[in-house]
Amino acid sequence: MRRKSLTGASCPVARSLDVIGDWWSLLIVRDAIRGARRFGEFQKSLGVSKNILTQRLRHLVAHGILENVPAADGSAYLDYVLTEKGRSLVTVIAALGQWGSELLFAPQQRRTIMVDRLTGQPVRRLKLQSQDGRTLSVDDIELKPPGAEAGHADARR
Amino acid sequence: MRRKSLTGASCPVARSLDVIGDWWSLLIVRDAIRGARRFGEFQKSLGVSKNILTQRLRHLVAHGILENVPAADGSAYLDYVLTEKGRSLVTVIAALGQWGSELLFAPQQRRTIMVDRLTGQPVRRLKLQSQDGRTLSVDDIELKPPGAEAGHADARR
Repeated sequence: MRRKSLTGASCPVARSLDVIGDWWSLLIVRDAIRGARRFGEFQKSLGVSKNILTQRLRHLVAHGILENVPAADGSAYLDYVLTEKGRSLVTVIAALGQWGSELLFAPQQRRTIMVDRLTGQPVRRLKLQSQDGRTLSVDDIELKPPGAEAGHADARR
Repeated sequence: MRRKSLTGASCPVARSLDVIGDWWSLLIVRDAIRGARRFGEFQKSLGVSKNILTQRLRHLVAHGILENVPAADGSAYLDYVLTEKGRSLVTVIAALGQWGSELLFAPQQRRTIMVDRLTGQPVRRLKLQSQDGRTLSVDDIELKPPGAEAGHADARR
């Protein structure tokens, strides 16, 4: 599928997918959350060639999701660490992981889990809620384009 | 980047990305949430060729995210609707949309928002929380592979 640029889209989902909507982007972010910093750590995890990984890491640096910092071991290499923008993708990673864990595994099949470091317990299941705390399903929500209704055009979510 | 099959991965994030980790998958799901059902509606929204859209829709049907149902207008065509598995991607769509809305738009730039149908108010920001309700950042969580610690190996998130 020829890729259409979504950079100027008024839909935030489309803009996000323009930046991180390729399977490898979020796997790199996942690995960074797991503590990977070195080029070789990402390469080992993802099993891709150096050239291609270099391009992919550059893409994430260019979009402000990763940044280069001096290597933790004091060597001349540069490490890759998540920026604030990259760190806030943890919610996207959690949502993807919870969906996959519930729907793509057999009940007893062992899987990686996202746990609270303090207690070792799994994190809570993310829940879509209204401002007054009602749980919302897909039937309860609407994607409202800008200008669809004057009163809500500037509202933020 | 050559695509590695992640179907058997123990990481639910990787398995999810194996199924929906291409920018067009979640745009199709987004359009279905917005009410698109007809082939032509998806085509108009995504601006891709018939051949390619056919392949993409088949992929989502094969993975149980969309299903074919008789057309709502009684014609001989088949519509595409979200299955339960597809409907539960709304949390992933919300997480992506909130990330994009906060980080990829200028403050006054108009954007699509996800609203609660009942009140017209934006949905709550998704928040990663511990079982006892503490808000968790990326520093507070850990991705624990199966078997990393016996006590948690079978825990579900």
